[in-house]
Amino acid sequence: MGSIATADTHEAEARDSSDVWLPSLITETPQEGFALAITLSQKGVATTQPDAEVRKELRPEYAQDPDSLIAASHVVATHFQTVAAANDYWRK
Amino acid sequence: MGSIATADTHEAEARDSSDVWLPSLITETPQEGFALAITLSQKGVATTQPDAEVRKELRPEYAQDPDSLIAASHVVATHFQTVAAANDYWRK
Amino acid sequence: MGSIATADTHEAEARDSSDVWLPSLITETPQEGFALAITLSQKGVATTQPDAEVRKELRPEYAQDPDSLIAASHVVATHFQTVAAANDYWRK
Amino acid sequence: MGSIATADTHEAEARDSSDVWLPSLITETPQEGFALAITLSQKGVATTQPDAEVRKELRPEYAQDPDSLIAASHVVATHFQTVAAANDYWRK
Amino acid sequence: MGSIATADTHEAEARDSSDVWLPSLITETPQEGFALAITLSQKGVATTQPDAEVRKELRPEYAQDPDSLIAASHVVATHFQTVAAANDYWRK
Amino acid sequence: MGSIATADTHEAEARDSSDVWLPSLITETPQEGFALAITLSQKGVATTQPDAEVRKELRPEYAQDPDSLIAASHVVATHFQTVAAANDYWRK
Repeated sequence: MGSIATADTHEAEARDSSDVWLPSLITETPQEGFALAITLSQKGVATTQPDAEVRKELRPEYAQDPDSLIAASHVVATHFQTVAAANDYWRK
Repeated sequence: MGSIATADTHEAEARDSSDVWLPSLITETPQEGFALAITLSQKGVATTQPDAEVRKELRPEYAQDPDSLIAASHVVATHFQTVAAANDYWRK
Repeated sequence: MGSIATADTHEAEARDSSDVWLPSLITETPQEGFALAITLSQKGVATTQPDAEVRKELRPEYAQDPDSLIAASHVVATHFQTVAAANDYWRK
Repeated sequence: MGSIATADTHEAEARDSSDVWLPSLITETPQEGFALAITLSQKGVATTQPDAEVRKELRPEYAQDPDSLIAASHVVATHFQTVAAANDYWRK
Repeated sequence: MGSIATADTHEAEARDSSDVWLPSLITETPQEGFALAITLSQKGVATTQPDAEVRKELRPEYAQDPDSLIAASHVVATHFQTVAAANDYWRK
Repeated sequence: MGSIATADTHEAEARDSSDVWLPSLITETPQEGFALAITLSQKGVATTQPDAEVRKELRPEYAQDPDSLIAASHVVATHFQTVAAANDYWRK
């Protein structure tokens, strides 16, 4: 849950950081949209636990636990709902 | 939760991969929409645990656990909400 | 979580199956809409655990567990949100 | 999770049943809307566990458990989101 | 989860009760909207456990438990989503 | 879950408090929007547990627990859905 910063601090960090990982929510296809939802879900985890090594060590624990896998799928579903709305459901 | 890739990497993978599993969110009927919501839920699991054998081995654990079954149904409900909105609730 | 099929396979199954259980999301009253949300929640469970006997055996476990009952109510709430939007909140 | 009935069966039951508990989602005030969201949450529980005596016996277990209380509040929040949208957020 | 009352009973209680705690969802600023979301989350708990003394005794249990704190934050997030939509995201 | 105050009390506190941490939901980019969603999630925790020292002591517990990390990511996903809608999905 990390230390509480004001919205401005977080946004300033996002602005200054050279790491632009989320340029847009717009994708060409639903499948790319689903891939983006996965990225957003993983970033949500990485923001709380920035240490990639720790995340890697945790993998055996959640990747073999059905409830963890279902919970992770639920996060993807919530982000996919956002990305699909952003792309007007790819209704050409 | 897998390794954190930028949105572009995931999307590039989705674009290049010959496996087009999600061409569209549009379905003819609500029942097909519900089936699509199930596919999306399962893909959310498979993305976190790509090994089909491992997923198969986990089945007895979650398929006999009411809380796991309820949680899985909740993921389907979230995706169905997205698919139903994409199809304007099949209101002809 | 079942085996991962492409969206087409699930939809094809839904199309071919003679069992049309979800003809429409439109209902006459909110109360019928709530009943439909319950059906959708139960179908989400039945898709993951198709064996009615197993589901019946699990009933004593979840029907006496407050957290399971609350979680089940949350799935109904998510589906009811979808059905209510589909019916424009029955605002005649 | 009860036995799986087709949507028609549930709706038929809702139509025939003399117990009209949900005539409308429209309320005069946000506070009445919040009260309706509580009713909807409780009905979601009562549908899965229809026995009022059993529900009463379970009360000490969940009413003293913070996680159960938070989870119940989350169900109310989801239904309140639906009722608020139905009433156009009571924006006169 | 309390005893199941019809929607009318709850609403009648809300109407008659002299305690008007939710006159409107409209706030001047997002920060006031976030404060309202917290009030709504707490009310959802208080409706299930009306005894303020019991709630106070439970505090040490949830206030030191990360999963309880995260779950409580999720309820606030759901209510904030409703309040933000009600205020058209304070987009002047 | 804190003591239950009326909506007015919370809002009054938000108004009077010199600490303006949420001036707006509008951000320039999706990445800043994601940063804001993290701030909102953390504020939801800090409102329930205002003691920064306690929150810091809890960190080892949740930062090494996959289910806690997934649950935290789900809160971020819910807030990001709100912030994305507020910014019309940054669709220039």
